[in-house]
Amino acid sequence: MQSIDGLRTQFLQYLEKNRFNQAPQTLYEPINYILKIGGKRMRPVMLLLACRMFKNEVEDALPAAFAVEIFHNFTLLHDDIMDDAPLRRGKATVHEKYDINTAILSGDVMMIYAYQYLAQSPSPLIPELLGILNHVAIGVCEGQQYDINFETAKKVKLTEYMHMIEQKTAVLLAGAMEMGARIGGANKTDAQHVYNFGRDIGIAFQLQDDILDTFGDPAKFGKKVGGDIAQNKKTFLTIKTLELADTTDTQTLCQLMQSIATDEAAKIKKVKDLYEKYDIRSIAEKEMNTYLEKALHHLNAVSVTDNRKTEIRELARYLISREV
Amino acid sequence: MQSIDGLRTQFLQYLEKNRFNQAPQTLYEPINYILKIGGKRMRPVMLLLACRMFKNEVEDALPAAFAVEIFHNFTLLHDDIMDDAPLRRGKATVHEKYDINTAILSGDVMMIYAYQYLAQSPSPLIPELLGILNHVAIGVCEGQQYDINFETAKKVKLTEYMHMIEQKTAVLLAGAMEMGARIGGANKTDAQHVYNFGRDIGIAFQLQDDILDTFGDPAKFGKKVGGDIAQNKKTFLTIKTLELADTTDTQTLCQLMQSIATDEAAKIKKVKDLYEKYDIRSIAEKEMNTYLEKALHHLNAVSVTDNRKTEIRELARYLISREV
Repeated sequence: MQSIDGLRTQFLQYLEKNRFNQAPQTLYEPINYILKIGGKRMRPVMLLLACRMFKNEVEDALPAAFAVEIFHNFTLLHDDIMDDAPLRRGKATVHEKYDINTAILSGDVMMIYAYQYLAQSPSPLIPELLGILNHVAIGVCEGQQYDINFETAKKVKLTEYMHMIEQKTAVLLAGAMEMGARIGGANKTDAQHVYNFGRDIGIAFQLQDDILDTFGDPAKFGKKVGGDIAQNKKTFLTIKTLELADTTDTQTLCQLMQSIATDEAAKIKKVKDLYEKYDIRSIAEKEMNTYLEKALHHLNAVSVTDNRKTEIRELARYLISREV
Repeated sequence: MQSIDGLRTQFLQYLEKNRFNQAPQTLYEPINYILKIGGKRMRPVMLLLACRMFKNEVEDALPAAFAVEIFHNFTLLHDDIMDDAPLRRGKATVHEKYDINTAILSGDVMMIYAYQYLAQSPSPLIPELLGILNHVAIGVCEGQQYDINFETAKKVKLTEYMHMIEQKTAVLLAGAMEMGARIGGANKTDAQHVYNFGRDIGIAFQLQDDILDTFGDPAKFGKKVGGDIAQNKKTFLTIKTLELADTTDTQTLCQLMQSIATDEAAKIKKVKDLYEKYDIRSIAEKEMNTYLEKALHHLNAVSVTDNRKTEIRELARYLISREV
């Protein structure tokens, strides 16, 4: 998708021009480090795409796109401390490469810079953009807290899980796209549809993540397939299985999910067998497609000509059909 | 100072009305905890005072006052992790009472709420207030980083130390007062004078802190007198002494400041003797008074009638003459 690559390049050039070269280096170097190791830049690209649905030039949306990318990376710094994660995108996490205090403080100042870049958006929009960022940022923190709570919770309901992934993953994408739409000149009704599109795509994306982690092709998937099962993570797959399973299977799955396996491959196989028994993969895929359809429904409702929606629609389908 | 107590009461009522009672409780309860154990509420009260210099009603400034108080308390949560501090105002710190992850995440969401309350200020002022908060918040993080760097630095220059306390302590007070002034209707020139007043009072306040920690009256001072010396903390007193001392005394002080004393009282006495030899207490007091005078000079320059400055001037003198 050439046009999207163009936007990504434009964003990366902006990022490069705005490197954190100021003093004290001990505070800012880790920010350049995490921003450099990168990822797909999905949030800023989607923000710019949302802007372009309404206006050909996306220059005005670059500071907000950077704000969202900085905010997202700040959450990675702090989440990786909380999860005690040694690696991020194949590289040492900031608290591993430097130390925990650095990851805390550099993360803190990143969050402030997210607001500082947001403040470089067109002035009349600033109060509203600030409201959007505040709203979704609070959602992200609440989502992370629910995720932490679920680790030790005995039982998590599917509605609770769906609410958690909406907050932790989907609302930031939704808010990013809403901001892009408003900067592009969308009215509030259209911007709300764009927000809903982003939220539903975000949820579909996270469900896809759950599916790929267990059923992905090891040759294509970046991480270790079966990682969620090995780590006893509560995902859509486990929670839905527990909803459907009979007493014996429920007990078996609960026991497996509390164990630290000596034979990890055997454990993964046992859990996958249970998933298959209850047809969980296709249930999850159906749920994912429901959210994709919901998202596209909101996109259809946006009051611009259909050809302005083509690239965003294609990207949505692409994101959900990904295998990595 | 009855009028100031009135403002503090008004602020505390606002705080009480805006307790964090929402879900998830695991995220928000620690915020109520830290906000409740309190302190002097110096920043919000000074913000309201700055507002009242220009306008009799301070209602409009309450959200910004709360924003600043939340921001300040967020920094306490994270600083206490970094300093591994068990106590704050005589109570268990959040990472001790709960855990480190809680202190990180509750702190994060506090910072966002600081921006959210700021966004409840009068709408036309929001872009400017956002700029002020961003500016001073970045300063606070940089100041904290310099403070951390100084712990392991071999030598810290007095200018570096003064810059650090300006950032870590003074700019938040300055920014708070600037916001208050603008919300009260001050023009930008007056607001700048108010900012400078707050900054210089903040620096004087921190110098007073350094002095009291070593020379305070144990019967009145809340913390242990001599704590900075015991912890080998680089303060105005040590740095100035090292600037003035002869080679032998420099060596002695450096050695003392690298040691973990078996006889702490003896160590404190030795360092205090060196301070006395170089008349450090009166040098520090003179420096503090210079900043107080600078601050009052900026207050004089504000274009309102002098009787509107009385309470703020009195509070400044009171803060600097405090013994606790």
